Amino acid sequence: MEVSERTPIDLDELLEAWWVLSAADRLEGFRLLDSEQAEEFFASLSAHDQAALLMMLAPQERRFWLRNLAPDDAVDLLQELDEDERPALLSLLDPATRREVSVLMAYAEDEAGGLMSSRFARVRPDMTVDEAVSYLRKQAVSGVELETIYYTYVLELDQRLVGIVSFRELFASPGSRPVRDVMLTDFVAVPEDLDQEHVARVFAEYDVLALPVVDAAGRMKGIVTVDDIVDVVEEEATEDAHKFGGLAALEMPYLRTGFFSIVRKRAGWLVLLFLGGMLTANALAQFEDSIALLPFLTLFIPLIIASGGNSGSQASTLVIRAMAMDEVRLRDWWRVARRELGTGLALGSVLGTIGFFRIVLFPGQTAAYGPGAVPLLGLTIAISLMCVVLFGTIVGSMLPFLLRRLGLDPASASAPLVATLVDVSGLVIYFLTAAFLLKGILHAAAG
Amino acid sequence: MEVSERTPIDLDELLEAWWVLSAADRLEGFRLLDSEQAEEFFASLSAHDQAALLMMLAPQERRFWLRNLAPDDAVDLLQELDEDERPALLSLLDPATRREVSVLMAYAEDEAGGLMSSRFARVRPDMTVDEAVSYLRKQAVSGVELETIYYTYVLELDQRLVGIVSFRELFASPGSRPVRDVMLTDFVAVPEDLDQEHVARVFAEYDVLALPVVDAAGRMKGIVTVDDIVDVVEEEATEDAHKFGGLAALEMPYLRTGFFSIVRKRAGWLVLLFLGGMLTANALAQFEDSIALLPFLTLFIPLIIASGGNSGSQASTLVIRAMAMDEVRLRDWWRVARRELGTGLALGSVLGTIGFFRIVLFPGQTAAYGPGAVPLLGLTIAISLMCVVLFGTIVGSMLPFLLRRLGLDPASASAPLVATLVDVSGLVIYFLTAAFLLKGILHAAAG
Repeated sequence: MEVSERTPIDLDELLEAWWVLSAADRLEGFRLLDSEQAEEFFASLSAHDQAALLMMLAPQERRFWLRNLAPDDAVDLLQELDEDERPALLSLLDPATRREVSVLMAYAEDEAGGLMSSRFARVRPDMTVDEAVSYLRKQAVSGVELETIYYTYVLELDQRLVGIVSFRELFASPGSRPVRDVMLTDFVAVPEDLDQEHVARVFAEYDVLALPVVDAAGRMKGIVTVDDIVDVVEEEATEDAHKFGGLAALEMPYLRTGFFSIVRKRAGWLVLLFLGGMLTANALAQFEDSIALLPFLTLFIPLIIASGGNSGSQASTLVIRAMAMDEVRLRDWWRVARRELGTGLALGSVLGTIGFFRIVLFPGQTAAYGPGAVPLLGLTIAISLMCVVLFGTIVGSMLPFLLRRLGLDPASASAPLVATLVDVSGLVIYFLTAAFLLKGILHAAAG
Repeated sequence: MEVSERTPIDLDELLEAWWVLSAADRLEGFRLLDSEQAEEFFASLSAHDQAALLMMLAPQERRFWLRNLAPDDAVDLLQELDEDERPALLSLLDPATRREVSVLMAYAEDEAGGLMSSRFARVRPDMTVDEAVSYLRKQAVSGVELETIYYTYVLELDQRLVGIVSFRELFASPGSRPVRDVMLTDFVAVPEDLDQEHVARVFAEYDVLALPVVDAAGRMKGIVTVDDIVDVVEEEATEDAHKFGGLAALEMPYLRTGFFSIVRKRAGWLVLLFLGGMLTANALAQFEDSIALLPFLTLFIPLIIASGGNSGSQASTLVIRAMAMDEVRLRDWWRVARRELGTGLALGSVLGTIGFFRIVLFPGQTAAYGPGAVPLLGLTIAISLMCVVLFGTIVGSMLPFLLRRLGLDPASASAPLVATLVDVSGLVIYFLTAAFLLKGILHAAAG
């Protein structure tokens, strides 16, 4: 009865092994299931796998599995197929569902229209409460599979949405009053092309179980229910996490994504970052003479550039996540920049101070360059750290704004990308500071 | 009516400015609101800010605002206060709510018990459908604020949960049948101490609007509704994102977190990583002689360690996210390790090949070391990249398992932490490879 006791292990194992099985083995595995298991299994496959499996089955079987799906799931499946394979499958549906599926297919998968179902309960504003209740009861008993009867939508003849009445309200109202008098007119509806991330934000803000979707003229098109939104929120969080980790988002669970597909998703960004990282070699080549004269400068290269990368990664994380939650908008860039300037200075001072004492207390071989060399090197490290951390913080916090401004996903301001950007400039900052502060020592070493 | 048209700007601005206002200004700003605005504003404050505001109000006002909250929200508020401030506030509640709040306060905020409400609809199994409907109707009309009437829970006299009947089912059933015959007995319930992340997974898997919470003996304690879960999922994703970005998770929206609080949350990890990063200086100090002899080796340090960090960040992202979604468990570590071994080899080969050709095609000053030097250096870079990427991939994918095994949050295997770990070992790999392959050139340079 409790979750822990309810684990249909064989199905789970089949699901987990699915991506390594050949097409023939998948078909065979599927045929081994009894009809109840097969239904549960088919329902838990991704739309992509459902489509692949369906196309392996005989045409007469396809009809059964396709009709078994809710219209929005059927749409997801059809969208996985090539354009020319769709009409044959569409024709397997009964006429009403076929119409509905065709309408839903016009929407992008990740907007309100693509998430919605058109099976919602509707009444007219001039019905009485009693008429509305018995009208709804008739629908419930007749077996029309409404997505929810908990909200009833009040539509004019032209389909314009004029009010919503919760079933609970209807249930607790005197039977002779018109629906118009008990309905809520101050409701929230979402436009059909609203991005699913924003639909999720509206759900979180208004705490409702379902949201009506309307077109530009206020005509009701369908409802999105909150249970679909939990999936959306998790999906978006996974996508953002993958992008932030510096790889193309996987569409499928990690263990069910094929080896070559994973390598491809990771190699793309890794190679790009590598090519960008080559600039660090060019930057360092400019300072090859200083390095040859004072090799101990090399020792702190990784420490300094890593500090810039780490502070940049913190800043970009905060801004990306705040943007995803609609807490920060494009127009807030200046507020964020001012804050991050202060934060970067504070964090830079902390690391700079620690760096200074690290050098002064444990000078190692650097003491050999004379008594003045140690504090000067300490100062070089401290000032470089300060500047690099400040620079990293500003780059990390502003890059998501820049990406969004360009119409790209701010989550692409990944930890690796910010680190790579900061690496090159961090090296330049470090060696310029060194060239300036250690001029005397460099001359002595050259002489 | 649509979302875009419904922006109560003054409240939003007050909320955004809240964290910069002094206590006195907050109180004054709050007093300026009319009563309807004040209620909306109070409800949209975090529990932390609600508690702070409440304690500034006069005791007779406190009663009003506290009673205005749903029991679970009141619990959140009380948990923000010191132990000794709670009894006085608890005594302001009416006896029934006080009892409920006291029970809920025994649960941790982030487990099923801490999320649940005890205001659910309940019937006995031997009632008829008609009796149950009119019993529920009486409750709805009497104004008892049930969390949802859409599921009715069927309890024995000892509070054991024996079935669930959706209102829809009840509504569509013949009135004379006993509830026992129409209720669903194959339902999902969650234990009261189940972590909220797992509760969210159960919602996503079973697509229900509410889940019953039961104790070890199967007695029903309350329900968790799906609208609370959307918040939980977003909250958990934010926490994980912050940790992965290398900072302590913020509890409040970024723009509403105070400056010093943000600096503190970031400085902790930044300093730790900095101290860890100091090991890179020690590692490099071991190779100071090689660097002095062949300064061009320095040029590729940032490139090589960044490649290790980037591939590690990709691997840890994938594993952390898959763990958060329950797609990967502790016992899967070996499967993941094998996959990542293959992936690391593939990615390392790609970067190694590019690195090799980078050196051979644009040798720069390195050609000065003789005709054999260029391909040997190319090989050094290629082999180092290969090993570092493989090592980064393995560290990045296994660290989350290690953290979870130790009872820590796998999301702490952040991009910066993995990069820092890989930096030190990357340097050692690089210089050992160089010492081995470039032995001849090093000898010639030393001679």
